[in-house]
Amino acid sequence: MNTQSSTDGVHLTLAQVEALTRRVLLACGVDPRNEAPITASVVAAEAEGVHSHGLARLPTYCEHARIGKIDGKARPVLDSPKPGLVRVDAKAGFAHPAIDFGLPALCEAAKAQGIAALAVTNSYNCGVVGYHVERIAQNGLLALAFVNAPASIAPAGGAKPVFGTNPVAFAVPRVGREPLVLDQSSSVVAKSEIVVHQQRGEAIPLGWALDRDGDPTTDPKAALAGGSMVPSGGYKGAGLALIVEVFAAWLTGASLSIDASSFADNLGGSPRTGQFFIAIDPGELAGEGASSRLERLFDAVAGQPGARLPGERRAAARARTATGGITIPRKLFDTIEAYARPA
Amino acid sequence: MNTQSSTDGVHLTLAQVEALTRRVLLACGVDPRNEAPITASVVAAEAEGVHSHGLARLPTYCEHARIGKIDGKARPVLDSPKPGLVRVDAKAGFAHPAIDFGLPALCEAAKAQGIAALAVTNSYNCGVVGYHVERIAQNGLLALAFVNAPASIAPAGGAKPVFGTNPVAFAVPRVGREPLVLDQSSSVVAKSEIVVHQQRGEAIPLGWALDRDGDPTTDPKAALAGGSMVPSGGYKGAGLALIVEVFAAWLTGASLSIDASSFADNLGGSPRTGQFFIAIDPGELAGEGASSRLERLFDAVAGQPGARLPGERRAAARARTATGGITIPRKLFDTIEAYARPA
Repeated sequence: MNTQSSTDGVHLTLAQVEALTRRVLLACGVDPRNEAPITASVVAAEAEGVHSHGLARLPTYCEHARIGKIDGKARPVLDSPKPGLVRVDAKAGFAHPAIDFGLPALCEAAKAQGIAALAVTNSYNCGVVGYHVERIAQNGLLALAFVNAPASIAPAGGAKPVFGTNPVAFAVPRVGREPLVLDQSSSVVAKSEIVVHQQRGEAIPLGWALDRDGDPTTDPKAALAGGSMVPSGGYKGAGLALIVEVFAAWLTGASLSIDASSFADNLGGSPRTGQFFIAIDPGELAGEGASSRLERLFDAVAGQPGARLPGERRAAARARTATGGITIPRKLFDTIEAYARPA
Repeated sequence: MNTQSSTDGVHLTLAQVEALTRRVLLACGVDPRNEAPITASVVAAEAEGVHSHGLARLPTYCEHARIGKIDGKARPVLDSPKPGLVRVDAKAGFAHPAIDFGLPALCEAAKAQGIAALAVTNSYNCGVVGYHVERIAQNGLLALAFVNAPASIAPAGGAKPVFGTNPVAFAVPRVGREPLVLDQSSSVVAKSEIVVHQQRGEAIPLGWALDRDGDPTTDPKAALAGGSMVPSGGYKGAGLALIVEVFAAWLTGASLSIDASSFADNLGGSPRTGQFFIAIDPGELAGEGASSRLERLFDAVAGQPGARLPGERRAAARARTATGGITIPRKLFDTIEAYARPA
């Protein structure tokens, strides 16, 4: 690959990110129909500056496909048990092809019924949840998503993890511009932040995580080895994680977070986690002047000194990376490249 | 009324709470068809020990009906613009009759379509949001609710309130026992907690509220007079408040929180706020063993030392008040009784 590089970093255009991702996923035996949605999401994450869910996660995807923790050739199966419900079984394969398989049926049902849901089961890490709801909103629909993950948040007062970092994502279409997207975990920070600090050998701030005894820790290793993530806002974050758990794991028939194998290591077979999406056609309800009312709300936020709307940083990153590309650590590049060679 | 009383408190059975509430609402000109749902919610709040949303709020309801800030005779109007959508216009009347009017149609649509939504617009304070979702779950449906309120939470980084305390409520049916109900505001505490401290002349803990300059305060008056409520978990609580705002206010066509008049004072006409409910039939999705999987999740919480499931305190209060009744301050009792007499 013709890339600019130094001893520390490798510069890649987004087209090169795409080509690299495609090449290594295919080399690890991922079906081309499954590879395309994963590659698109990795490119989108890098374009928006969400490095933790971009190329940094690709070695894990490759490793899981190669060893068969995830079935890279699994094809999702779709059914619609009721007019407003779409269900996709990811069949212990990747999440992205399963979600992409269900989105058109979800959007169609939402437009016909006014509201519809997509339940994805037997699934896997779906990357940036905002990426998926944004695509629903690009169809003119209000979107809400709940996603579960291996247990890492303890209930309020307890020390043993029960809920994943269980993010909620939301997107609302805007006239003449990109949808507003909000994507936040139920924990103070996403687990990937802890992993990044561990990789860099840096301490984490107090208040992000607890050790295995339920005590606050600044050691990322103590947080990841049997510890837990602190829920955002204390018991309210744990409450939100419970709500997400019921929608994403229980309702979809997926693994509860306590039963899901790790997204990070090679043990335990497929995590079989779940994603639940709700899409609503706002046309009939929001009524006349809907767009100006929405922009009035957003202006009340963006018009204040010091405040900003969610998604502004991602939009700036998109503009920057479209022409400027990205730079990743040489070590990460080499790790990814190694997956292009036979195991 | 034959009540046990002392100089400080008045003891009431729940039957007496019901009779008192009914009598004063009717005396203030509330239509009997509207009075019944309000009275039922006040009794339920007192039964569950949520005093801030029980008799303590009744004088405001009465005052607003008497002066016409709320139209006590308004009858809600229902339509169903799409198979999965039910809309109720509260017509600037009370929230409870509007919600009660829509719930049967919501539940019917959810069972037929798999998922349905109820949008309530031109509405008012709906009391304990958990009360409403619990009734949806008693129909065997998973329920989620978003409710907006006059602006009192500033966006992250800002000082001027844009969002209401905007609660989220959730309920899931359980086999052989009452639904699990979770009901939490987007702020660190509900605004009623600040009001209670002001009424008692007590300081509030740091971290609950900001003054009008955006600085932390322990003075409930500074919090309520131009100040703001601190969002739970910082920017994530403000993010959640934004999501709730879009569903409850924008999507329903109700007043944005920045435009809504106060729930507490007599100014500005009807607040015309909104409530948005989503109901889902879990039967088709959660599949075989759904009940045991749900209880396994709940056991993982309740089985930990120090942890408890949401709703345990309310269940205990219900058992206690069913036979033991409640005691309210003499001053509150006298204030309520005064509304039984002509203005």
